[in-house]
Amino acid sequence: MNLLLLHPHQHLHGNLWRLDERQCRHVRDILGLTEGGSCRAGIVGGGIGMAQIESRENNEMRVLFNEDSHPCPPLPLSLLLALPRPKMLKRILIDATSLGIKRIVLINSWKVDKSYWQTPNLKADLLREKMLLGLEQARDTMLPELVLAPRFKPFVEDNLNAWAGPGQRILAHPGDYPPMPGDLTEPVTLAIGPEGGWTDYEVSMLQQQGFACHSFGARILRVETALPALVGRVMRLP
Amino acid sequence: MNLLLLHPHQHLHGNLWRLDERQCRHVRDILGLTEGGSCRAGIVGGGIGMAQIESRENNEMRVLFNEDSHPCPPLPLSLLLALPRPKMLKRILIDATSLGIKRIVLINSWKVDKSYWQTPNLKADLLREKMLLGLEQARDTMLPELVLAPRFKPFVEDNLNAWAGPGQRILAHPGDYPPMPGDLTEPVTLAIGPEGGWTDYEVSMLQQQGFACHSFGARILRVETALPALVGRVMRLP
Repeated sequence: MNLLLLHPHQHLHGNLWRLDERQCRHVRDILGLTEGGSCRAGIVGGGIGMAQIESRENNEMRVLFNEDSHPCPPLPLSLLLALPRPKMLKRILIDATSLGIKRIVLINSWKVDKSYWQTPNLKADLLREKMLLGLEQARDTMLPELVLAPRFKPFVEDNLNAWAGPGQRILAHPGDYPPMPGDLTEPVTLAIGPEGGWTDYEVSMLQQQGFACHSFGARILRVETALPALVGRVMRLP
Repeated sequence: MNLLLLHPHQHLHGNLWRLDERQCRHVRDILGLTEGGSCRAGIVGGGIGMAQIESRENNEMRVLFNEDSHPCPPLPLSLLLALPRPKMLKRILIDATSLGIKRIVLINSWKVDKSYWQTPNLKADLLREKMLLGLEQARDTMLPELVLAPRFKPFVEDNLNAWAGPGQRILAHPGDYPPMPGDLTEPVTLAIGPEGGWTDYEVSMLQQQGFACHSFGARILRVETALPALVGRVMRLP
């Protein structure tokens, strides 16, 4: 936790905020702060600044928050990601969020196990929780917009073009394709397939929506490795 | 497991090999292969090719291995990495290996908790096991050379220059530095610090050894996210 992320329900009055239990433990046990001590904090969806411990009684901790700056700029990369294995979804959402991605679609694919769509991990509050961890990691306050697309064809045919908007549309796909572009600063939409890759049918449907295939080396990477490697390659991180 | 990785002790005679218990389970339960079926395989430190199920009796499985190609070329990137938290070390070694890194030094740093050096994870056979998982993932057979440097100063002063050898020496460090170079194909040595970063003293010692600081965005990334992102950025993956 590199940032105390303050939620509206924690606001008391003026610039006084109440820390939740997890934040209290962090401030007390990890940062070792006492009254008067301060650390970085931010308001979900708002600015960042310093939080100073105003009072500390048993498990209740109050801070005075003074905003002094904006969070890191967003990464202008939209991510179309085949739904990962449930046990990897947490890590991937934390990584994507900490990298600054603000627009994510989790989409079905032929090689996505149907059971993945049944897991409790996909409950909105649990997805949000993971993304909040990514914000705390990267000292950001702006939650990504996350869309679930459990049906590939209708989303790609009817929604993808509008969702992706302007900018390059990139698909990492094994084969004799031009190398992945790099160091981009303008908007990009990046499609990352499931373990085992998109099917030829899926690739052709994405190509019909303006996605261009690019090669990214001969190695088979786990999705959780490929995502940060591709983002690091394609974008210049602001 | 994208490759059956065959070890010398599994060799019977000619091109006949015995699968270990884990490989048997994978071939039987995941790939669903029966006698005559085949899948990709490779010999540790050697070539890759096809393994055909020759016989299958209860838990004993034998394959005929025929080499037909070389593993993916290595990534000409040497990694100087501050020893990560024990629970992350496994993932980081799997990722580094699957990305094709062949030379790794795990080094101490002021911000590395001393207890990290006491964990059983650092036993050579356990480190090797993690790297083997990375090879299986990326269909590679060449194990990285891994060095443990529990003392920062003597390694950096006496060994680092010779270990790094020719090529750029790069340090990801927050601050007003030139952006991280990208799309390199020649040898590079990349230094990645601990959570919280290298100390100024450590940075200056690395600079004395020819490492140049480069910025990699304003966000604080977990080491397990920063590693693939930096590798994807700096190198053109072969």
